[in-house]
Amino acid sequence: MPPDDTTPPPTALTEEDLAALDAHWRAANYLAVGQIYLMANPLLTEPLRPEHVKPRLLGHWGTSPGLNLVHTHLNRVIRDRDLDALCIWGPGHGGPAVVANSWLEGSYTETYPDVTRDAAGMARLFKQFSFPGGIPSHVAPETPGSIHEGGELGYALSHAYGAALDNPGLLVTCVIGDGEAETGPLAASWHSNKFLDPVHDGAVLPVLHLNGYKIANPTVLARLPEEELDELLRGYGHDPLHVTGEDPAAVHRAMAGAMDTALDRITALQRAAREDGATERPRWPMIVLRTPKGWTGPAEVDGLPVEGTWRAHQVPLAAVRDNPEHLRQLESWLRSYRPEELFDAQGAPRPEVLACVPEGERRLGATPRANGGLLLRTLPLPPLEKHAVPVDKPGATLHEPTRVLGDLLEDVMAATAERRDFRLVGPDETASNRLQAVYEASGKAWQAETRPVDENLDRHGRVMEILSEHTCQGWLEGYLLTGRHGLFSCYEAFVHIVDSMVNQHVKWLRTTRRLDWRAPIASLNYLLTSHVWRQDHNGFSHQDPGFVDHILNKSPEAVRVYFPPDANTLLSVADHALRSRNYVNVIVAGKQPCFDWLSMEEARVHCARGLGVWDWAGTEDGTREPDVVLACAGDVPTQETLAAAQLLRGRLPDLAVRVVNVVDIARLLPAEEHPHGMSDFEYDGVFTSDKPVIFAYHGYPWLIHRLAYRRDGHEHLHVRGYKERGTTTTPFDMVVQNDLDRYRLVMDVIDRVPGLAVRAAAVRQEMQDARLRHHEWIREHGVDLPEVADWTWDG
Amino acid sequence: MPPDDTTPPPTALTEEDLAALDAHWRAANYLAVGQIYLMANPLLTEPLRPEHVKPRLLGHWGTSPGLNLVHTHLNRVIRDRDLDALCIWGPGHGGPAVVANSWLEGSYTETYPDVTRDAAGMARLFKQFSFPGGIPSHVAPETPGSIHEGGELGYALSHAYGAALDNPGLLVTCVIGDGEAETGPLAASWHSNKFLDPVHDGAVLPVLHLNGYKIANPTVLARLPEEELDELLRGYGHDPLHVTGEDPAAVHRAMAGAMDTALDRITALQRAAREDGATERPRWPMIVLRTPKGWTGPAEVDGLPVEGTWRAHQVPLAAVRDNPEHLRQLESWLRSYRPEELFDAQGAPRPEVLACVPEGERRLGATPRANGGLLLRTLPLPPLEKHAVPVDKPGATLHEPTRVLGDLLEDVMAATAERRDFRLVGPDETASNRLQAVYEASGKAWQAETRPVDENLDRHGRVMEILSEHTCQGWLEGYLLTGRHGLFSCYEAFVHIVDSMVNQHVKWLRTTRRLDWRAPIASLNYLLTSHVWRQDHNGFSHQDPGFVDHILNKSPEAVRVYFPPDANTLLSVADHALRSRNYVNVIVAGKQPCFDWLSMEEARVHCARGLGVWDWAGTEDGTREPDVVLACAGDVPTQETLAAAQLLRGRLPDLAVRVVNVVDIARLLPAEEHPHGMSDFEYDGVFTSDKPVIFAYHGYPWLIHRLAYRRDGHEHLHVRGYKERGTTTTPFDMVVQNDLDRYRLVMDVIDRVPGLAVRAAAVRQEMQDARLRHHEWIREHGVDLPEVADWTWDG
Repeated sequence: MPPDDTTPPPTALTEEDLAALDAHWRAANYLAVGQIYLMANPLLTEPLRPEHVKPRLLGHWGTSPGLNLVHTHLNRVIRDRDLDALCIWGPGHGGPAVVANSWLEGSYTETYPDVTRDAAGMARLFKQFSFPGGIPSHVAPETPGSIHEGGELGYALSHAYGAALDNPGLLVTCVIGDGEAETGPLAASWHSNKFLDPVHDGAVLPVLHLNGYKIANPTVLARLPEEELDELLRGYGHDPLHVTGEDPAAVHRAMAGAMDTALDRITALQRAAREDGATERPRWPMIVLRTPKGWTGPAEVDGLPVEGTWRAHQVPLAAVRDNPEHLRQLESWLRSYRPEELFDAQGAPRPEVLACVPEGERRLGATPRANGGLLLRTLPLPPLEKHAVPVDKPGATLHEPTRVLGDLLEDVMAATAERRDFRLVGPDETASNRLQAVYEASGKAWQAETRPVDENLDRHGRVMEILSEHTCQGWLEGYLLTGRHGLFSCYEAFVHIVDSMVNQHVKWLRTTRRLDWRAPIASLNYLLTSHVWRQDHNGFSHQDPGFVDHILNKSPEAVRVYFPPDANTLLSVADHALRSRNYVNVIVAGKQPCFDWLSMEEARVHCARGLGVWDWAGTEDGTREPDVVLACAGDVPTQETLAAAQLLRGRLPDLAVRVVNVVDIARLLPAEEHPHGMSDFEYDGVFTSDKPVIFAYHGYPWLIHRLAYRRDGHEHLHVRGYKERGTTTTPFDMVVQNDLDRYRLVMDVIDRVPGLAVRAAAVRQEMQDARLRHHEWIREHGVDLPEVADWTWDG
Repeated sequence: MPPDDTTPPPTALTEEDLAALDAHWRAANYLAVGQIYLMANPLLTEPLRPEHVKPRLLGHWGTSPGLNLVHTHLNRVIRDRDLDALCIWGPGHGGPAVVANSWLEGSYTETYPDVTRDAAGMARLFKQFSFPGGIPSHVAPETPGSIHEGGELGYALSHAYGAALDNPGLLVTCVIGDGEAETGPLAASWHSNKFLDPVHDGAVLPVLHLNGYKIANPTVLARLPEEELDELLRGYGHDPLHVTGEDPAAVHRAMAGAMDTALDRITALQRAAREDGATERPRWPMIVLRTPKGWTGPAEVDGLPVEGTWRAHQVPLAAVRDNPEHLRQLESWLRSYRPEELFDAQGAPRPEVLACVPEGERRLGATPRANGGLLLRTLPLPPLEKHAVPVDKPGATLHEPTRVLGDLLEDVMAATAERRDFRLVGPDETASNRLQAVYEASGKAWQAETRPVDENLDRHGRVMEILSEHTCQGWLEGYLLTGRHGLFSCYEAFVHIVDSMVNQHVKWLRTTRRLDWRAPIASLNYLLTSHVWRQDHNGFSHQDPGFVDHILNKSPEAVRVYFPPDANTLLSVADHALRSRNYVNVIVAGKQPCFDWLSMEEARVHCARGLGVWDWAGTEDGTREPDVVLACAGDVPTQETLAAAQLLRGRLPDLAVRVVNVVDIARLLPAEEHPHGMSDFEYDGVFTSDKPVIFAYHGYPWLIHRLAYRRDGHEHLHVRGYKERGTTTTPFDMVVQNDLDRYRLVMDVIDRVPGLAVRAAAVRQEMQDARLRHHEWIREHGVDLPEVADWTWDG
């Protein structure tokens, strides 16, 4: 049994209250079972026959009664206390439960008018579940009131915190399954409470649901001695309240008591911080709900225990159409909820079933918090000219692009100081990524102990730094999905840590784009820096440019990738990304000093086109076709390409060289494959259809082939990029090791342009010699050749 | 202050012991600083001048003194207790520390004879660090005694547990930085202690090193009240012992006491389980080490505090060559260790410095545990014929491929019952993936509470199931790196969760392949199942075939990807993977009933070739060139392709159709790009260079283009695959939604073979009609068309 101080006092529910709560819960359970099994006879007005049952039984019953219990009790407190509430359903597999509740409260029918709140609508509700052309089996974008799919487990709690940030009046309840609790992302996200500002942020109420089993195993947390579990949860910074049982009436009483206790404590903690100026980190309450898996379902099937075991995970009775005993058990299970007491003759929920349901937008399925686009305001962005670096001629000055962006972000932070709808997240890398100007406008969120030596920590800060890419991603997703804006700055290599999370977010965006009732949300913007070519302190483990490849596998309508080559192009791209909606924008940019190539006006035009010929860098005079095209994407490849162009201009002045810079990499795709793709006509106009193209690319070289393989000129395309050769070495040695250096590019030109091999043999040898000189020099001196380190553009 | 019961009693160190420990620690600190800064004058035999200092200062000082302290004290207990020990250095950024210790104990010179244990060797040791042509800045494959890079944080503790499994005599100490402790994978892996068998596994001793700061922020755990931190660690199942301080002598005494207390407790717990038959889950000790970041380094630089702050993270004095004050501080810092007391005139460590160092293979840099290939034994695999399914003719029978593989794995489990050098890991999916036959030979590791309803839980089991892909991956990596074998079975979509972990493992393998002294280890084998085409219960969130794309971005020498189309080919591929060394093998296979196409003997030949023409499936008669090639990779695409071939045979009998099945997808690459790649001659012999190829592929279609773009026939290659269209629907509807179905493939043939468009217009219409009929049928019936559901091969 739980220790006394964690057992909340029962709330004084009247018998009528209790009956109403139980009726609501039974109704939701009935509707959940109905969705999994039935395609006809929804109210059991006639005896159940095999043909009433779906031919394919899909879905997850096990978690559903627990979710229904939480929903029922949330209804009560929302109604009683007039709460602005959102719920994250971590066990998203329990789609039938959340859909059932939405239908009961009416929000489902308001969203999908053909699923009426009557027998016909109930039949439709049942049949559509996990049925072709119907709705998915999980809580999904299609589910009213949800911002969380919950198919891939781990992100519920970070989503909940993201939703609560800067929503001081909001209560975010988060149901965490004990399976999900074993995942790394979930385990890390408990510490989010060290970052939640009790003044400006709302409250998160975790409900750890211990139903004891995963697919086929007990869960770790359910098998800890209760004292040990309490230590863990207190160690996470919470005060746990326990609700344990399998007798519905007792559990209803205990749950109501726990809810009231938790909400009273939250109110007290918020009041202390907001009115009394308390600065101590609150110890927030949470609820540990321990009920049987598949509660109220069949106790035994075919002689094996089911309720309260892993066998209740999906479909407890699997052979209902063929096995009369299963059919009988299903009917008896459904009738155990006494549907005739719950629904009237027309199939509508009876008033007592709805007694606990709140009104209007207070309903969990109707809250605009879960349809964040409705609440989204345009982000106040400064005029780019304010932060643009002056560029009179290309390559005459150097700036650190991300530092320049930091100045812009400082303005955004400052402009949202009152509105509080912009956050910058990152895994302890904001300063390393040279964005620290933002601290002038907002410090770093921090509720734990501070010491005099600390800098920029701020109880009310909107920069979020925790050494967990998962938590950063989850926070930002939750924040965006509830109608706000943000940016995630991350070391390029380690953004792979959230590969699977971004998969799920893109899937969410793709689906919501097809749902008229879902308003567009702000894009999820990544700034990937400290990139593969400049990981000087860290070497091979920190070198991986493959996130772009990963992203470009996703639905083209929702993904954008940018390689701004300098400071002003980074400003332009970031501005565009921050204004955009419903995308994942990936911006890869450097933090090291980088030549300024384009003025702000040129940068705008170039970024709007996505790619373009840099006349000034090649030999374009409007009269000659190029002999060769030097293409580049990324800051370091751009510099090497321009250095190669300069070498060629000096060594082979009669060679017609075109330089093309690509910012928006999806431009290389055919127009029919990506909204930013180019027609062949456009492509050939830039790259030609028959001249050698030497493409210096930031990442894995085959990505460029994968994008451009349909082009006529593809056989003339030769790509240089990162080929997994790295270690701790000098910046120029990194490009040499991967054959992306200026000398190699010149050699590539000589090797590929017809007729040059003989004529330019001496130049080729000179390039080869330079590479050898480089090798010898760095091994002796440990720094790059002066001719490289001090190189400047003389165009 | 820590509560009394967590402060261990100090061990009675003599003054001589203390002096020796401190000398060793100072020597290691000196060598760490020397590596970061010096390229000459290693013993400071002359005043330090700018030219002695490296021109580029790289590396991480902050964590190094703590790592040196742990190493020094591990030396003492290893020597005193004759321990078989391995250490995982989670803060792998502290490369200089671990390298310094290896050099001191002599293992570095044994591994790299040119880095002698004298002044010349010390000079080389210093210069090579983070220097072109030298060694990386982190603990790396190049570091003797390491199995863990530690650049990407999060995996230290799961690696430690993996190493300890089935090594009953081994002590694995695991240093966990407080930065790393914030990551999800690390947070999840604390619960590994519920899976560690005190009888057959060794011990893991976590040392949580709270140096207080990350790159630029305080750490969460260091800023918890000590009582709250203790609750957390007890909640994780540990008994924490605290060592806190900054006075070296006091810390040495406390650390020695903590080490002795921890090791005594471990011995007692192991004895209780092994000799007294105790079955209660042990509460293992751990150490919380709280010392300043950059301890013993400069207290202040340029007027700002450095020691004990985040400013000590990398290079505390950054301008040594140009700033005389920095140079003076560096010299004074180095001399503070009193090198003249530590090294003799020749530069060798003095005997008192080495007094604590163990001998031979007991040294942490010399243990064969960290070079697991040395200990690896050949895995006892059964003859495949034992488990092969009989195939008299193709497509006459059905089997669930993974279930057949489960029988083979059962044999492997049984054959290793005594040796205990094989483990199966997975996130609660072993049974879902239909491998449950293994439970006949070994249950699931589980040390927590058991209940009567549980099945297959086993205190001594070697099947590992936790709902954390990260933990599964970390366990398996640690297990393989210490010389054992294993397999990771995972839902295909969610293996992306470990994208970044497999990145690091492939990087490790790639590097070790270049180190002669590293013996090859068993490959990391993935079985990806419950794949994109058959996620019937879960839908869109569980559909993602992109891991293969991710893997094929990695070093070709270390990655292999297989798509066995049926049960016998899966057996053959799995057998090959389990015998292989130093690869990451990805096997994508189905768990649903699948036609048996090849006999065991045919499967062996087919898999050895990696791809091949299936004469029996096409119209091959040895006389005609094909009009079209139907290629396929993956079980579902293979079935659709054969169904298309059958439709074509019936509808267009004079069309010459070749069917090619691809198992080893890297065969499509050019020979010069992958060891399994084909020459153009081979490729054209299979696919032709000028005929239409309709390729039905399991994953994202552009991967095939990315592999084959250099082939002459590439312009005739038309690929169908998954294009991110999914939901909860019928199996056949999934392929229809993605245009991979048999009808669409036939239409593709008609559209692509010259002359067919007109001649086969009626057939094309028939296919189109079938697709429409499908759409209508499933929306009414919820199951696939009988003609599809009951389809059989009639070849």
